[in-house]
Amino acid sequence: MLTGNTEGGLMNPLTKGKVKTVYAVDNVNHVLIEYHDKVTAGNGEKEAKPLNKGGICCQISGLLFKYLEKEGIRTHHIDTIGHTMLCHKAEVLPVEVVVRNYAAGSFVRQTPFEQGLKFEYPLVEFYLKDDDKNDPLLNEPRLKLMGIYGYQKDKICIEAVKVSKVLTRVFEVIGLDLVDFKLEFAFNEGELMVVDEISPDSMRLWKKGTQQSMDKDLFRKDTGDIMEAYKKILMDLQGVLQ
Amino acid sequence: MLTGNTEGGLMNPLTKGKVKTVYAVDNVNHVLIEYHDKVTAGNGEKEAKPLNKGGICCQISGLLFKYLEKEGIRTHHIDTIGHTMLCHKAEVLPVEVVVRNYAAGSFVRQTPFEQGLKFEYPLVEFYLKDDDKNDPLLNEPRLKLMGIYGYQKDKICIEAVKVSKVLTRVFEVIGLDLVDFKLEFAFNEGELMVVDEISPDSMRLWKKGTQQSMDKDLFRKDTGDIMEAYKKILMDLQGVLQ
Repeated sequence: MLTGNTEGGLMNPLTKGKVKTVYAVDNVNHVLIEYHDKVTAGNGEKEAKPLNKGGICCQISGLLFKYLEKEGIRTHHIDTIGHTMLCHKAEVLPVEVVVRNYAAGSFVRQTPFEQGLKFEYPLVEFYLKDDDKNDPLLNEPRLKLMGIYGYQKDKICIEAVKVSKVLTRVFEVIGLDLVDFKLEFAFNEGELMVVDEISPDSMRLWKKGTQQSMDKDLFRKDTGDIMEAYKKILMDLQGVLQ
Repeated sequence: MLTGNTEGGLMNPLTKGKVKTVYAVDNVNHVLIEYHDKVTAGNGEKEAKPLNKGGICCQISGLLFKYLEKEGIRTHHIDTIGHTMLCHKAEVLPVEVVVRNYAAGSFVRQTPFEQGLKFEYPLVEFYLKDDDKNDPLLNEPRLKLMGIYGYQKDKICIEAVKVSKVLTRVFEVIGLDLVDFKLEFAFNEGELMVVDEISPDSMRLWKKGTQQSMDKDLFRKDTGDIMEAYKKILMDLQGVLQ
């Protein structure tokens, strides 16, 4: 098991994000994704380094990816090794896909709808993956210009809703409402694959029936300790998924 | 002809925007829209009061509305009276519709595409009409939640492209590329109607084949005198449309 920081130089970093680094490994069809002990908000304007945060997000992601696979959803996950994840290498699409079950966050700031509104069907939204531009919302004409339309876009929406249904059930069991979450996708040999991370860093979770956050909003809004919340989620998920 | 400011109190203002005021008149099916000698940018952060600017924008709008009517496009325009416009009263939809022929402005800031890219087909985009929220972009799921989808949305897109084709031809004759423009729509007894304003305040116009602005960007970017540009456009339009 890898316990130390892989940044020592033994491995070759392919890309470095705000909270994760992707390394090449021996098998050219695989990559190793390292989760850092770091949390950021406001596109990196706010930052903290909670001890073991990377490991916990990596473990949560690993559990959820494995469960999605069980439910017939293809993901890039091969194995979870401490705070790192061995994954299938894939060309990630340059969009972030956000699935919303309730109105919250930027959705409320950018529409006439109130926080907490429950949608009849999950809403699937696309954002441009570009930190310099602040990950702006994309509409259908913009997606089309980027080559994401028709079959490919429909396939992503269908898969995203499927993921939402599976995750909603999982979180319901541990007493949480899945408000919204971000997915990334890749096409691997023509097949769609869920990639990146699925953790409380990339979703909103409210204690059932309340609007009490158990996710990164605790850090964004300075309303509580993310480590306490994330640890509880990991323990609860281990209880029901392992 | 009305020459003084209608704000004296003789008429009853219904709504007051950043650069226009809408007044009730005797006929309950009509309104009078007064164009002010004011230009704003950055959602009101920047402001100036060029003399006679309201009158010129009102005259340009009047000419273009009349020409659209001639081309079979329904508008709210009844008559132009100095710096005011007598219009059919209508329930305006809470969206701004932007038609883009070339990439410019916020489109460039929010997508991977470069300034000046010419689109094969006009792009039709919807924005929420809400200054407090900074008029954010809307995608199809958000529009649907707002009740704008299916027949109504298709009808707006078709009409917007029709307007774009007509205006593109008009501006071509006077040596200008119609880059993009904003429209507002209302449904009046089930029929779609172009409303609000169509002037260099609500569009981008470049001198043919260059990217030299002849519109509000001169004010936004402090690169020239809008009054000189707007007056020339009015004169040229009078030459070809009257």
